[in-house]
Amino acid sequence: MAETSNSPTGGYVQMDDVGWIPFPPGLCKGNIRWKLLHVSPEAGAWTAIFDCPAGTSFAKHIHMGPGEYFLTKGRMHVRGGSVVGGATAVAPGYGYEACNAQHDHTEFTEDSEFYMTFMGPLNFLDDDGNTVALVGCQQVLDAWNAATGG
Amino acid sequence: MAETSNSPTGGYVQMDDVGWIPFPPGLCKGNIRWKLLHVSPEAGAWTAIFDCPAGTSFAKHIHMGPGEYFLTKGRMHVRGGSVVGGATAVAPGYGYEACNAQHDHTEFTEDSEFYMTFMGPLNFLDDDGNTVALVGCQQVLDAWNAATGG
Amino acid sequence: MAETSNSPTGGYVQMDDVGWIPFPPGLCKGNIRWKLLHVSPEAGAWTAIFDCPAGTSFAKHIHMGPGEYFLTKGRMHVRGGSVVGGATAVAPGYGYEACNAQHDHTEFTEDSEFYMTFMGPLNFLDDDGNTVALVGCQQVLDAWNAATGG
Amino acid sequence: MAETSNSPTGGYVQMDDVGWIPFPPGLCKGNIRWKLLHVSPEAGAWTAIFDCPAGTSFAKHIHMGPGEYFLTKGRMHVRGGSVVGGATAVAPGYGYEACNAQHDHTEFTEDSEFYMTFMGPLNFLDDDGNTVALVGCQQVLDAWNAATGG
Repeated sequence: MAETSNSPTGGYVQMDDVGWIPFPPGLCKGNIRWKLLHVSPEAGAWTAIFDCPAGTSFAKHIHMGPGEYFLTKGRMHVRGGSVVGGATAVAPGYGYEACNAQHDHTEFTEDSEFYMTFMGPLNFLDDDGNTVALVGCQQVLDAWNAATGG
Repeated sequence: MAETSNSPTGGYVQMDDVGWIPFPPGLCKGNIRWKLLHVSPEAGAWTAIFDCPAGTSFAKHIHMGPGEYFLTKGRMHVRGGSVVGGATAVAPGYGYEACNAQHDHTEFTEDSEFYMTFMGPLNFLDDDGNTVALVGCQQVLDAWNAATGG
Repeated sequence: MAETSNSPTGGYVQMDDVGWIPFPPGLCKGNIRWKLLHVSPEAGAWTAIFDCPAGTSFAKHIHMGPGEYFLTKGRMHVRGGSVVGGATAVAPGYGYEACNAQHDHTEFTEDSEFYMTFMGPLNFLDDDGNTVALVGCQQVLDAWNAATGG
Repeated sequence: MAETSNSPTGGYVQMDDVGWIPFPPGLCKGNIRWKLLHVSPEAGAWTAIFDCPAGTSFAKHIHMGPGEYFLTKGRMHVRGGSVVGGATAVAPGYGYEACNAQHDHTEFTEDSEFYMTFMGPLNFLDDDGNTVALVGCQQVLDAWNAATGG
């Protein structure tokens, strides 16, 4: 893999030199944008930062491996799945999402931003629990390259 | 998680004291049997040994994380996916299946047995590339417990 | 492991409700402080945020597994090891430190802060290359609990 | 990394075409031999098979990450560390060694063989608990290449 500067396949990214890209519309509601920072193809891990304006949300998904987020701005409401009660993260907040955590709704009621490391894919589901998209390190890299011409 | 002896949630398994269980029929052709040896719920990793009589095969799948096998008996033919040419493992053989490796056919032309460690889920696909079953550590543990009454 | 709120063994940490603790003096120069956010005992992974005033530095170490940092404030100069030339990260900067990366000097010339996820231990070395301290998830948890009375 | 056939940096190893190499004498007692099957440099993981004649043993060590073994022949006695009582594996036996497991003695009272996948390094210790050798994927690959001329 080439050690390209400011590329998710390199070792360092100067984050403010990389533009925000719209996150695929089928996977979220509203204008969520992201920057893909790294892919680790051996382990299937990947790292990104997300910009989530007030009123946006992510579609229903299951974390097929653990993930860790650092909410740097705003509020993130996690609802549903096995734990119905939900939780709210407030910046600055750290959260560990366990392998197989299911998130029926991940909503942002104010402008928010979070950085997240993912091990393995996200399994996006429809209302019947069928897989709509399996989003792992290869898929995010392909989506990123398609959007940025990388 | 309880450290139950001879359980995939414990630390040690006396393998010949555990019976073979049929592998779910939708995921293979013929009488493939397995023993689930371990699940690592934090990472979503799992370990099993498979008994594959001559004429059996696994259905089309993608490894969503890396896997390593130790073929202790027989021959395993791996075909298709990005590398069309395929490969044949002959016991004693070791193989590393990279994250995102796609196996259109995994066939056994003689009685075979292999031990394998998996990181993350297997994504079983139909002919159109749609996900039929996503088989990760939780799914294998549930299947194992359902079959063994564990 | 108990899901204790605001504990590195729980799932969520409200980061501004946790106080900064001095990082062990043998492992750094100057008043570096940290908050341990998470330990994943199964994999030996851990996550922390570091406050590094101008003039501080970390002692010589090798990353025994990969690590990823998000520099949220300031500048971090990484020097030495196999790549003598070094590199400088400027906030907001993301970096992937590969397994076996050796850092002879990690210096902060202005007030800086970074969040980092670690897989496996750091191997702190003396000038002769001997291991002074092997700092993995158990060691950081013990150090954190000793300092916070946790 | 080149996909060299029958090399620990490739994808497949025909195990009976690879010769046994003496395991470094400082790390064991007696004529333990091994074959390095794979290194995963990104994660710092590695895989090997060990041939352990009756009367041999491994030196005191700590697993800095989890490991899984498949004992295919003989008996392996694990003693000491936090669990003083010890355990005995009998072929065919599977064992999961947790991250930070300490093994004061690993002894073979009959001719034995085991296959093992390791995440992260082994920390070999002297009687005072000081690190004698930190054996991770880079060190095993260097040792293997030095011994085989690879």
